[in-house]
Amino acid sequence: MRATTIHGPGDIRFTEVPDPTIIEPTDAIVRVTSSCICGSDLWPYRGENPITEGATIGHECIGVVEEVGSEVRDIRVGDFVVVPFDHCDGTCAHCLAGVQSACVNLGMTTSGQGEYARVVHADGSLVRVDGVSGGAPDPALVPSLVALSDVLPTGWHAAVAAGVKPGDTVVVVGDGAVGLCGVLAASTMGAERVVVMSRHEPRQRIATEFGATHVVAERGKEGAEAIKELTGGVGADAVLECVGTDQAMGTAFAIARPGSTVGFVGVPHGVELPVRRMFQKNVGLAGGMAPVRRYLPALLDLVLAGTIDPGKVFDLTLPLDQVAEGYRAMDERRAIKVLLQP
Amino acid sequence: MRATTIHGPGDIRFTEVPDPTIIEPTDAIVRVTSSCICGSDLWPYRGENPITEGATIGHECIGVVEEVGSEVRDIRVGDFVVVPFDHCDGTCAHCLAGVQSACVNLGMTTSGQGEYARVVHADGSLVRVDGVSGGAPDPALVPSLVALSDVLPTGWHAAVAAGVKPGDTVVVVGDGAVGLCGVLAASTMGAERVVVMSRHEPRQRIATEFGATHVVAERGKEGAEAIKELTGGVGADAVLECVGTDQAMGTAFAIARPGSTVGFVGVPHGVELPVRRMFQKNVGLAGGMAPVRRYLPALLDLVLAGTIDPGKVFDLTLPLDQVAEGYRAMDERRAIKVLLQP
Repeated sequence: MRATTIHGPGDIRFTEVPDPTIIEPTDAIVRVTSSCICGSDLWPYRGENPITEGATIGHECIGVVEEVGSEVRDIRVGDFVVVPFDHCDGTCAHCLAGVQSACVNLGMTTSGQGEYARVVHADGSLVRVDGVSGGAPDPALVPSLVALSDVLPTGWHAAVAAGVKPGDTVVVVGDGAVGLCGVLAASTMGAERVVVMSRHEPRQRIATEFGATHVVAERGKEGAEAIKELTGGVGADAVLECVGTDQAMGTAFAIARPGSTVGFVGVPHGVELPVRRMFQKNVGLAGGMAPVRRYLPALLDLVLAGTIDPGKVFDLTLPLDQVAEGYRAMDERRAIKVLLQP
Repeated sequence: MRATTIHGPGDIRFTEVPDPTIIEPTDAIVRVTSSCICGSDLWPYRGENPITEGATIGHECIGVVEEVGSEVRDIRVGDFVVVPFDHCDGTCAHCLAGVQSACVNLGMTTSGQGEYARVVHADGSLVRVDGVSGGAPDPALVPSLVALSDVLPTGWHAAVAAGVKPGDTVVVVGDGAVGLCGVLAASTMGAERVVVMSRHEPRQRIATEFGATHVVAERGKEGAEAIKELTGGVGADAVLECVGTDQAMGTAFAIARPGSTVGFVGVPHGVELPVRRMFQKNVGLAGGMAPVRRYLPALLDLVLAGTIDPGKVFDLTLPLDQVAEGYRAMDERRAIKVLLQP
C-alpha cells in the first residue's frame, strides 16, 4: 500500500510499504477513508523525538473494516468505524476502570496516514458509525468523525481530568487543535466562563465558535496577571494544559486556584513540575494519554446529533499524497490541523 | 514566657522569650496546655531548612484562650480549643472553597512548644472543645486532641486528596505519625485493604491498631513488587505519600494503578515528579499543606465519640522543659512522636 513515512527531521514521504496484515486473531484491518496530522506528529518531524527511518506515521483515522481476525465478534467486515489512536482490549482491569490508554494489551495506530491500518483488539477498540453505507459518510460529517479518533477525546480528557463542572471558570492553555477541543469540552460540560490563551486570530475565532467567552493574548507572567484580574485574584477553577512544554505547564500552575486541578494532555517535553507550589497551593495534576474508547460512544452521539462540530479544527484539507505539505503547513503554523483525503 | 527555640542544627533550647501579644484585633492568645513535636520540625533540626537563630518553634498545640482581640466574636476567653497549625480567616474565597491552607490571610502557630501561642484570625481558626471546664480535659483525651492540631488532619488530607473510597486498596508510603494517621483515615473511610509500608515493628503495630490489613516491609523496587503481587498486578486504588522525599514519591507512583491519584502531604524535599510516567499511566497527584480547619470539627466529633484514637501515635511524653530530648528521640527514631506537657 501507499503510506506516509518519516525518514528524518522534516523528511516526510508518501511511499510504498508492505500492507498491514492480521497478526493476532483479535486484529482488524481498516481501509482508511480519511485521516489527519496530529500536533504530536510534529515532535519527531522537528527531531525532538527519536525516529526510526522509513517508519510509517499517523495515528488518527476513520474507515471501513476490510478484514477481521478469527476471534473478532462485534466488529464486521464492511463496518464504518472510528479508530481510536490507542487500541485496547476492553476487558483488562485498566479498561474496566476507564483507563483504556493504560490497557495491558495497549496498541497504537501506526499507519493512519496510509491506505490501510492494523487495529489490535478490534472489538475493544473500534466504534461503529451506524447508518453509513458503502463506506462513505456524509462529507460534512467527515472532519468531525476524524476528530473523534484523537483530538476531541484528548481535549475532552483534559476537561474531565481537570474536573470541569457547570458554572466553572476554565482556562485553556494552548490554542492548538487539542486546546480548541478543550474549549469545546469545557463549554459543553457547562463551564460558565471559558478562557482561551491565544494570540492567533484564526484560532481565537474557532475558540469563540467552540464556546470560549474570553480570549487572553498575553503569555507568561502577563498572561497569568490577566487571568488573576479576570478571576478577582482567585484563579481558575480548572486549567487545561494542552501543549506539553515547561512554559505552558508553568502558566497552568500559576493561574490555577488553590484546590483546583490542572488537567494535562500535551505529551510532556522538558517539563519540570513545580512540586513546591503544588504543595503550598494544593493544586493537583491529573490527566495523561487520553482513553479515547472511554469517551468515544458518547462523543459520537454528540457529533451525530449535531450538538458539537469538532471538525472545525481542520482548516486545511489535502490529498493524502501531499501529506508532506500538510506537515510543513502545521510546522509553520500556517494550518491548525490538516485533514487528509485519499 | 518560656518556649522552645532553635539556635542551629541539633540545637534546641527551652528559653525565656517575650510573651506573644495581640497585634491584630482578630487575634487570640492561647495558653498552651499540651503540644508536641512534628516530623517537619526535624527538617530545620537536621539543618535541611534555613534557621533563624533563636526563633521559637512548634506549631501543634491545644489550650485555653487567655485573651482575644476586639473583633473576635465566636471565641471567648476561657474556651478550651484545638489550634490548627495553619490559621485562616474563614471568609476568603479559598477558605470558602475548603482550602484554608491557602487562606489569603494565612497564619501559622510559631510558639506551639511554648507557654503561649498567638493565633491570627481566632474566629476562623480555633475550634472549641465543649464541656472542658477549668482548662483540663480528660487526660486520656489529651493526646488525641493534640493530634487534631496537625498530624491527624494531615493524614486525613492525604486520604481525601487520593480519593479513598469504600472498598479501595490503599497503600500508605511512610510509617511516621502522619503515615499512621493516613492509615487511620483510609480505614475510617471504608478502605477494604490498607497496606502500610513499614519496617519498624512498633509502627507496624500501631498501623495495625489503626486498621492496616497488610504490612509491606520491603522498600524501593522490592516494595513495589510486593504491592504489585498484592493487587494482582493492577496497583493500588489510592496511594498516600506521607514522607516528602524523592524516594517515597517514586515508590508512590510506581505502585499507583493507572487512573488513580497519589495524595501527598509530606513537605517535598528534593522531589522530582515523574511527569512522563504520570502521563503514560494517567496517575495524578493531589494534596499539599492540609486545610486543618476544614476537617477539624468532624474529626473532633470522631475523637469525642471514641470512634478514633489518633493519640496512639504518641509513644513518648516529656515535660516541656525536656523538649530537646524529644527532638533527639524523634531524630534518632527512638520515638514516633513526642507529646509535651507543661
